[in-house]
Amino acid sequence: MENFKVTPWEVTGKIDYDKLIREFGTQKIDTQLKHRLTKACGGKLHPMLSRDFFFSHRDLNLILNDYEKGKGFFLYTGRKPSKGMHIGHLVSMIMTKWFQEKFKTNVYIEITDDEGFLHRKDDMWGDIQSAAHDNILDIIAIGFDPDRTFIFKDSEYIGNLYPLLLRAARKITGSTVKAVFGFNDSTNIGLSMYPAYQTIPTFFEKKRCLIPCGIDQDNYWRIQRDIAESMGYYKTAAIHSAFIPPLQGIDGKMSSSGAKEATIFLTDDEKTVKNKINKYAFSGGRATLEEHKKLGGNPNIDISFQWMKILFEPDDKKLTQIEHEYRVGKILSGEMKALLIERLNGFLALHRKQRAVAEKNIDKFMYNGKLAKEMWSKRYE
Amino acid sequence: MENFKVTPWEVTGKIDYDKLIREFGTQKIDTQLKHRLTKACGGKLHPMLSRDFFFSHRDLNLILNDYEKGKGFFLYTGRKPSKGMHIGHLVSMIMTKWFQEKFKTNVYIEITDDEGFLHRKDDMWGDIQSAAHDNILDIIAIGFDPDRTFIFKDSEYIGNLYPLLLRAARKITGSTVKAVFGFNDSTNIGLSMYPAYQTIPTFFEKKRCLIPCGIDQDNYWRIQRDIAESMGYYKTAAIHSAFIPPLQGIDGKMSSSGAKEATIFLTDDEKTVKNKINKYAFSGGRATLEEHKKLGGNPNIDISFQWMKILFEPDDKKLTQIEHEYRVGKILSGEMKALLIERLNGFLALHRKQRAVAEKNIDKFMYNGKLAKEMWSKRYE
Repeated sequence: MENFKVTPWEVTGKIDYDKLIREFGTQKIDTQLKHRLTKACGGKLHPMLSRDFFFSHRDLNLILNDYEKGKGFFLYTGRKPSKGMHIGHLVSMIMTKWFQEKFKTNVYIEITDDEGFLHRKDDMWGDIQSAAHDNILDIIAIGFDPDRTFIFKDSEYIGNLYPLLLRAARKITGSTVKAVFGFNDSTNIGLSMYPAYQTIPTFFEKKRCLIPCGIDQDNYWRIQRDIAESMGYYKTAAIHSAFIPPLQGIDGKMSSSGAKEATIFLTDDEKTVKNKINKYAFSGGRATLEEHKKLGGNPNIDISFQWMKILFEPDDKKLTQIEHEYRVGKILSGEMKALLIERLNGFLALHRKQRAVAEKNIDKFMYNGKLAKEMWSKRYE
Repeated sequence: MENFKVTPWEVTGKIDYDKLIREFGTQKIDTQLKHRLTKACGGKLHPMLSRDFFFSHRDLNLILNDYEKGKGFFLYTGRKPSKGMHIGHLVSMIMTKWFQEKFKTNVYIEITDDEGFLHRKDDMWGDIQSAAHDNILDIIAIGFDPDRTFIFKDSEYIGNLYPLLLRAARKITGSTVKAVFGFNDSTNIGLSMYPAYQTIPTFFEKKRCLIPCGIDQDNYWRIQRDIAESMGYYKTAAIHSAFIPPLQGIDGKMSSSGAKEATIFLTDDEKTVKNKINKYAFSGGRATLEEHKKLGGNPNIDISFQWMKILFEPDDKKLTQIEHEYRVGKILSGEMKALLIERLNGFLALHRKQRAVAEKNIDKFMYNGKLAKEMWSKRYE
C-alpha cells in the first residue's frame, strides 16, 4: 500500500480496491454471488450492489446458505453520535435498510454514546445525548421497519448485557486494541474497553449477523471474528463498501472532519447544495466548451456523475445514458452538476420530510416496537 | 523497601509500617487525632483504632471537620466475590460497621462481580454470582444497618451509573492502571477498565467518603484522589490497617491464595479451628516448659496473642493481663492458644448464627431498604 492508506481512522490517496481485498483477506462480491443474492432477494439488487460500490465481503455466502435453509440472519449497524451527519454516513444505513426490506430481518442499530463521549476530552454528557437524538431522527428517516428494528443507546442498554460484555472483554487484550484501533498507553481506559461493546450486537441472536460497512471498518470486526466461536456464537459476516469521494476529487473519503465544502450534510438546504456542487464538485469535463463538445468528458473522475452512480440515480438505463452523453460531449459539465443537484435536493427534501415525522416513532424503535419490547425483556450473559 | 514489599497484589517480608507511611505519603493516626475521633464518636474507640492496627490515614482530619460542622460523611467498602472469606477479609468490614454505628452514616458496599469474573480466565458467570451471594451473606452477618447500607453488585447497578463511570474512565489512562495495578498489554481490556468502576461509589454523595482498607490498597485510591476534584467531587479519605499475620508467623499478610493452614476461614468449624491453631499458630513461647516459666514468652511474635490483640479480645484490661502473664511465664504457649481458640470459636459461632438469618435480609440491603430504594431511584451522570 504505497500510494494509499486505509485504516479505521485514516483514508488517504488513490485507493486500489482489489489490492485492499488481497491485503485484508476478504472476498470479492463476484458475479456468481450477485446472482445468488439476486435470486434470494426475489427482485433486483440495490444499485450499490449491482454497481459494485459494495465490492467485498466476509461470509456473505454463508449468510445466503443460512437464508436458503430457512435459518435466516440478522443485520447490525451503528453510529457514534455527533452532530452533522453527511450523505457518506447514510451508505451503510441505506444498504442495511435494503436488506431488511428484502429479507424481512431484524436490524440492530447501536448508538455508541459511550464511545462518542470517551472520544472527546471535554464534551458534556448532555452534548452527546443531544447529538444522539439528532442522529436517531436521521436514521429513522431512512425508513427502517419499526417492528423489526431496535435502536439503542449503549448507555441505556448496558444493564441488559453487561455480563456478556465482560465475557467478550475478557477475551480481548490491550495489545489487540492497540493494534486494531491505534490506541496507546495515553488512551483512556474507557475508550480501550469500548471495542468489546461494539462486538456485542453480533451476539444478539443465535443466527449469523451481517454488517454492511465501509471497507475501512473491516478491522474492527476481525476482533469479533477472533472471539465469537469460542463464546459459542457465529463469526459475523460483512459486506464492505468503497468510499463516497469528497466533492473536491475522486480520491480519499468524504469526512465530516475535513473541509465543510467537501461534504453535503443532511441539513444543507437547496441553495447550499446548489452552491457547493457548482463551486466545488470536481468535474471530468474539458477545459473549454469547444474541447468538451469535441472530445467529451470523463465520467470516471467526475464527482457529480460518481455520486449519481453510487446513490442518486437508481435507474440503470438513465445512468448509462447520462454516462454516454457525457463521454461524447453532449452533456456539459454544468449540466452534469445540475443533474446531481436536482437528484440530491430531491433526496434531501424527502429525507427532511421523513425526519419531520421520525420524532413520533422514536419510542417504537427504541422502547415499545415489537423487537424493541422483546429486547428490553432480555438479559444477556 | 529492601526487606519487605507492599503492593496491591503482593505483601511479603517484615513490614516497617512507619516506613510505609513515609513512602506512601500518608499520615499517621496520632494521639491527637485519636482524641478527636474519640470525642466525635462519643464513646470508646474500636480496639483496632486504639491499638493502632489502623495506623495510617488520608484526610481523616477533614472527615472530622465535616462531621463537626454537621456536614457528615459516608463510608465505602467492597468485596471481589470469591468463595472462602477468611477473618482477614473482615477487618475493613468490621471497621466500617463501627463507623456506621457510631456516626450513623450511610455505607456503600460494592460487590465487584465484574472484577471477579475478569480476573479469572475460565470461571463461568454463574460461579461468580454464587460466590457473590455467599460473600454477601457473610457481609450482612457483620451487622450493618439495613436502612443505611446499600450492597450492590457491579453488574446490577451498572445501568444507574454508566455515564458517571465513563466520566471517570475518560480521566484515567492506560499508563496509570499499568503503574497502579501492575497491568500490561496482555491484560484484558475489561480488567484494565475496571479501576474506574472502583472509584464511582466515592461519588455517590456530595460529601466526603471514608474508606477503611488495608494499607496495600492505598494505591487504588490515589487514582480517585487524582481525578475527583476535576469531576466536582471530594478526594476520598481513608484509614489504613496493618495486616493480620498468617498463622505461621508474624511477617506478611494472611491470604486465601496462600496455604489453607495459614488461614482461618469463616466456614471453619470448632474442631478445625482448634486443630489449625494448635498445629500451626506460631508461638512466642520458649523451647521448654522450664525455660518458658523462667524467662516468659514473647507476645510480640506470638500469633495467638496478636490475633486477640487485633480482633478477638476487645477488653483492654484482660488483654494487658494476658500479655503480662505471658511475659512472665505464667501463661504457657498451649494456654495462649486455648485462649484464642475459645474467642475465635465464639466469634465464628456468632457469625454463623447471624449468617443464618442474613438471607432474609438480603433484599433490604440490596433492593428495598431505605438507602437501597433511594439508590435504585438515582441515575448518576
